[in-house]
Amino acid sequence: MGGDRAPTEIVAGARLAADEGIPVLLVGPPAQVGDTAGLDLLACTEVIAMDEDPAQGVRRKKDSSLVRSAELVRDGLASAMVSAGNTGATMASALLRMGRLRGVSRPCIATPIPRLDRPPAILVDAGANAECTPAMLVQFAQMGAAYAAERYGIGDPAVALLSIGEERTKGTPLVKETAAALEAGVPGVRFVGNVEGRDLLDCPADVVVTDGFTGNVALKTAEGTLRFVMGLLLGVFSTDEETKAAAAVLLPHLEPLVRVLDPDNTGGAMLLGVDGVCVISHGSSSATAILNAVRAAHELGTGGLVERLAKAVSPA
Amino acid sequence: MGGDRAPTEIVAGARLAADEGIPVLLVGPPAQVGDTAGLDLLACTEVIAMDEDPAQGVRRKKDSSLVRSAELVRDGLASAMVSAGNTGATMASALLRMGRLRGVSRPCIATPIPRLDRPPAILVDAGANAECTPAMLVQFAQMGAAYAAERYGIGDPAVALLSIGEERTKGTPLVKETAAALEAGVPGVRFVGNVEGRDLLDCPADVVVTDGFTGNVALKTAEGTLRFVMGLLLGVFSTDEETKAAAAVLLPHLEPLVRVLDPDNTGGAMLLGVDGVCVISHGSSSATAILNAVRAAHELGTGGLVERLAKAVSPA
Repeated sequence: MGGDRAPTEIVAGARLAADEGIPVLLVGPPAQVGDTAGLDLLACTEVIAMDEDPAQGVRRKKDSSLVRSAELVRDGLASAMVSAGNTGATMASALLRMGRLRGVSRPCIATPIPRLDRPPAILVDAGANAECTPAMLVQFAQMGAAYAAERYGIGDPAVALLSIGEERTKGTPLVKETAAALEAGVPGVRFVGNVEGRDLLDCPADVVVTDGFTGNVALKTAEGTLRFVMGLLLGVFSTDEETKAAAAVLLPHLEPLVRVLDPDNTGGAMLLGVDGVCVISHGSSSATAILNAVRAAHELGTGGLVERLAKAVSPA
Repeated sequence: MGGDRAPTEIVAGARLAADEGIPVLLVGPPAQVGDTAGLDLLACTEVIAMDEDPAQGVRRKKDSSLVRSAELVRDGLASAMVSAGNTGATMASALLRMGRLRGVSRPCIATPIPRLDRPPAILVDAGANAECTPAMLVQFAQMGAAYAAERYGIGDPAVALLSIGEERTKGTPLVKETAAALEAGVPGVRFVGNVEGRDLLDCPADVVVTDGFTGNVALKTAEGTLRFVMGLLLGVFSTDEETKAAAAVLLPHLEPLVRVLDPDNTGGAMLLGVDGVCVISHGSSSATAILNAVRAAHELGTGGLVERLAKAVSPA
């Protein structure tokens, strides 16, 4: 039911995934879902709206599509859940119904950041926790590294801390204390130092660790800047017949780059630290975005992600 | 002496400004400056390096180009200083030699963020204070609004707070408390609510307020994303003879956009809250960047910026 383009694009994306052989179950109020494109639907009676208070929504709407989806994962009836809806409510549903992984202080959101000719880098936390402690950031580093290894097959991923300079003297106390802790040595984390905002795209590190406020601002700044530039380019391309002809020559070369940069193709963000797989697709998800999110959910839900994360945060 | 391309590009930019009739005085060790292109040089014996600890540098190197420049402004021998060098040391020199404006808790860095067909928006703080209180952010809002009005002639500028959602429930305690204070009414500040990272480019608000850590990450993320996309485009343009011909058709249309987005054309960042005009040009400043920075310094140094800022922060 979630996202600006629900239910049409969500159902269409689920249908594409089912066509690939991935078993998909829709969850939502039948009247609102409408045509299920032949997919199974678990009927529920409520929906948590995009702008609804997450904690209140989850507490009050026990028969909402989000809460029911999280229960299906908890009860082993689904391997993973995917939502393009209210991010806070998605997190709260997963946290309250699936529970936290043993030893995890706070779950975090891991979002892929595009790189050329390599799997994406992972930004943790991309928005789950506006306020963080050094101990939380250290766990984000552990979970982010485990996720990069599990999802993208990156062996011994390079982990960096997002700051405002490479020098240790720069940054907030949170950044300085976290850097000191990571430098002292944390199991499963190969710390390579600080990176800056300018390094995010095509990032030299495989995992970038930050608090959820900074991570969310940085992610949205990068997305907004990309969208702005794309808009300018499309404007120039359509100026006149001559520019349209020139654009037609360039488009075949631009398309592979646009594909790398389009968030619809990354398979969505992942909530790390809950006892189950929960994929958070962005609010404007198209059918393609949902297809890729379901693919990622299927791969991770039937693989060893949760066990790997549990091991990553457990004391040695 | 500052920046990656000093002294050649700095002197060249100063020369261009002098050719426009702006009186420019270089400051530096004669042997290191070399050819002054006919400009006057105030000789000093020391230079604070780009990677040197700012506070220590300013304390120990009393005859450095940065400290001497700030003294020239303090003593009324210069209307403004411009540096592309060590940002921390530039701020420390200005703060220690010019002093703080009466009533200012902490000076902040105001950086222009490009907009199309309008003067740029102003980001405060873009990196001077990694840790901030709500009271500091309220002052940044006041100084940012005064600066937008003075420099770009924006009457009654719209002031927004950078957060991770438009809703008041989102963000850090710092953001929530600052929003409450701005909503309650602050003299000289027309508060229009929160903006997100995705709004930074071509921003609907004229002034965006944030702490120096978040501001610096956001600014560098936007710059890095722009540079990344430009690099990809140039790569596509130069693929073969056909793409080169297509690029030649598009370039006249792209050039005005590149001009708007190029930080060399914005005239640099401004340190607000010290008793004098101090322009901070980026470390990779070209002669064009320095020319524009000197133009801004001249305009603001001979205008009423400092008085306007003093008035903006003084109790009603």
